[in-house]
Amino acid sequence: MIDIEQYNSPPSIKAALLSYQDDFMRLSASRTEAQEIILTRDILSSNNRTLPDIIGSGRSLFIVTPTVNRIYGRALRKYIEAGHVNTESEVFVLNSNEASKSLRAVSEVCDQASEFGLERNAPLVAMGGGVCLDISGLSAALYRRGVPNIKIPTTLVGLIDAGIGTKNAVNHDGRKSLLGTFSPPVASVLDTTFLSTLPVRHLRNGFAEMLKIAVIADQLLFKLLHEQGGELLEQKFQGTHSATSEAIRRSVVAMLQELSLNLYEKYEYKRKVDFGHTFSPYIETASRHTILHGEAVAIDIAISTQLAWNLGILNIEERNAIFEALRNSGLPHHWGGIDPKDMYLSLRSIRQHRDGYLHLVVPDKIGSCIFIEDDDIDLQLLATCVDQLSTQQVLGTGLRILPI
Amino acid sequence: MIDIEQYNSPPSIKAALLSYQDDFMRLSASRTEAQEIILTRDILSSNNRTLPDIIGSGRSLFIVTPTVNRIYGRALRKYIEAGHVNTESEVFVLNSNEASKSLRAVSEVCDQASEFGLERNAPLVAMGGGVCLDISGLSAALYRRGVPNIKIPTTLVGLIDAGIGTKNAVNHDGRKSLLGTFSPPVASVLDTTFLSTLPVRHLRNGFAEMLKIAVIADQLLFKLLHEQGGELLEQKFQGTHSATSEAIRRSVVAMLQELSLNLYEKYEYKRKVDFGHTFSPYIETASRHTILHGEAVAIDIAISTQLAWNLGILNIEERNAIFEALRNSGLPHHWGGIDPKDMYLSLRSIRQHRDGYLHLVVPDKIGSCIFIEDDDIDLQLLATCVDQLSTQQVLGTGLRILPI
Repeated sequence: MIDIEQYNSPPSIKAALLSYQDDFMRLSASRTEAQEIILTRDILSSNNRTLPDIIGSGRSLFIVTPTVNRIYGRALRKYIEAGHVNTESEVFVLNSNEASKSLRAVSEVCDQASEFGLERNAPLVAMGGGVCLDISGLSAALYRRGVPNIKIPTTLVGLIDAGIGTKNAVNHDGRKSLLGTFSPPVASVLDTTFLSTLPVRHLRNGFAEMLKIAVIADQLLFKLLHEQGGELLEQKFQGTHSATSEAIRRSVVAMLQELSLNLYEKYEYKRKVDFGHTFSPYIETASRHTILHGEAVAIDIAISTQLAWNLGILNIEERNAIFEALRNSGLPHHWGGIDPKDMYLSLRSIRQHRDGYLHLVVPDKIGSCIFIEDDDIDLQLLATCVDQLSTQQVLGTGLRILPI
Repeated sequence: MIDIEQYNSPPSIKAALLSYQDDFMRLSASRTEAQEIILTRDILSSNNRTLPDIIGSGRSLFIVTPTVNRIYGRALRKYIEAGHVNTESEVFVLNSNEASKSLRAVSEVCDQASEFGLERNAPLVAMGGGVCLDISGLSAALYRRGVPNIKIPTTLVGLIDAGIGTKNAVNHDGRKSLLGTFSPPVASVLDTTFLSTLPVRHLRNGFAEMLKIAVIADQLLFKLLHEQGGELLEQKFQGTHSATSEAIRRSVVAMLQELSLNLYEKYEYKRKVDFGHTFSPYIETASRHTILHGEAVAIDIAISTQLAWNLGILNIEERNAIFEALRNSGLPHHWGGIDPKDMYLSLRSIRQHRDGYLHLVVPDKIGSCIFIEDDDIDLQLLATCVDQLSTQQVLGTGLRILPI
């Protein structure tokens, strides 16, 4: 099934072109980078050839989180000892979180790679959540000016978002994701069995990102999540029916399609995947991070959806379907602590990051979206939406409102 | 003369391609990066439009060394204040050397960029020697996942080597250049007026790299350096005759041509530009860095050349011409402290870096070279060459031998 040659082949590099005339020279070069994304189950079982096929015969270094080490560390070491990958491969436990996601953590991973003697073409394999994937990805990009990186996300948001992107970054000088690179992993291995050991709140956190991509880009995925989201979460995505794998696969494909349009984010700041990510930074910060990222995204989705309805962009049936999907999955619509004025003011830094424009993503129907700008929304409208959501006027019963 | 549009145009990115079938997806993307190399003089004079054309109207951050700040800092600040570039641009003095070329120095430059509020498309302009260019280049590659980098080398080795390459790196865990990226600057501005304030020993240091590229790749450049090298150095490359600019231009073009064959150094470890860089690391280390890099390169050139003659690869007239070129420029042929056995043993780490092979570059005639491997040289032969060079048998008089 897997074409081994593809993994081990070098990135295709077209010979650089050099032109010169008198005192002006110009050197230009193309490089093509390829990333495999593989959906699988039970990667550490001896029957599963995914890792051996990707990693090859060399010594590789695994970077895992303390949680992954606690639950899967023994199995991973047995897997290495059994010779499924080179038996001299090693496992390093990286103790890091969002607050310590810094150059210092990158330095620590590079120290390990250096002491281990990681070769120029040998992979750095990251197995963990988004923070671990980010730090390992940046370390792989820098160590010996770039060694292959393999991402094995162990969270739902990792599977459908952080683990399949080309970006990596660490925080610096008090600013989120200030330093990083665009360097695609050679492979993202998406194993849904890891989800079986996650708390349901963390699964919901990732589910919000699935809903996000469904609302703006995939009507069929939305239908699936709307109808079966609650059940998928209850079964922790371990159900054997096709809905489970279909939900993950469609989310991944939809996300990759959006990312592929603007892979290096150069000179284009209108990103559909920013849906749910305009008001959520304010909500996360204002709640002092008691609200998880995905929960804030869910509330942002509700606000953006209600805005679209108030502006006559989205009809009431489709608006209600979005609210129902949130409700069915147990995600919140509202947080009681929102101050509309503060939230409105927070848009300034959002605009700054988007080259001066708001580029607010709102659905115009299920599976489709448009961008709206400052002219279309003001504080009054935003306050109205927040008020409507807080008083449950919008959808009768069953709304989940987070307390302050 | 300069096409401004070219500088400000984004790197060309072909839309990423996504293919998928069942549980396997593949994302591939090409990016083309272009680098301008401009030979000029007096960049800080108000008549010279090179910097304004490249930098554009935005606020840029200049990173300079303490030495550059001492000699040119006043002129640079006046240049900014006069509005040749955005008057809100700032100058940061980076105090670093080879020993402190680390992630910490990169972190410091990124702190400055963050406090300055360097925008996503605004350039980080480095003005200094190789260490400053390396640290700034890596900082520019990481800050906001990459801002444009402009390199303005102020040393001869910077002008014809470090300032025009796509590589950057810092030392880590006691290993030289362990962490870095391949990220071409948008422009390298090569201003020979900076050479006027350099000590002659440092000019010779760069001259060794010019000779290196001439011997292996450009017969005409060699003729020019052989005949006029002494004069060029004496005039510190400030002579108005065409030989000055021709020597720099041909060195730059020859170097770029070699680099362009293997820009990202992937899966190819035979590099012609490694001529003079096989024995020199041993010489630098064994001399406790009292011998400069370029001096060690000159001695390596002499050893490699003598090896080629002993092996019947190079004829005596061309061998002698290479020795004469070294002599005429005041570069050494030999260092009395060489222990042939230690030098022979040092080749082990060289092979390690070249994927297991020696790939020793030796000239087979002026302007051309071949690679020889372990089968062709042994300790006996190496000791013979060193002995021949030490006793001045090779070229009658005028050899410069460095004392222990």
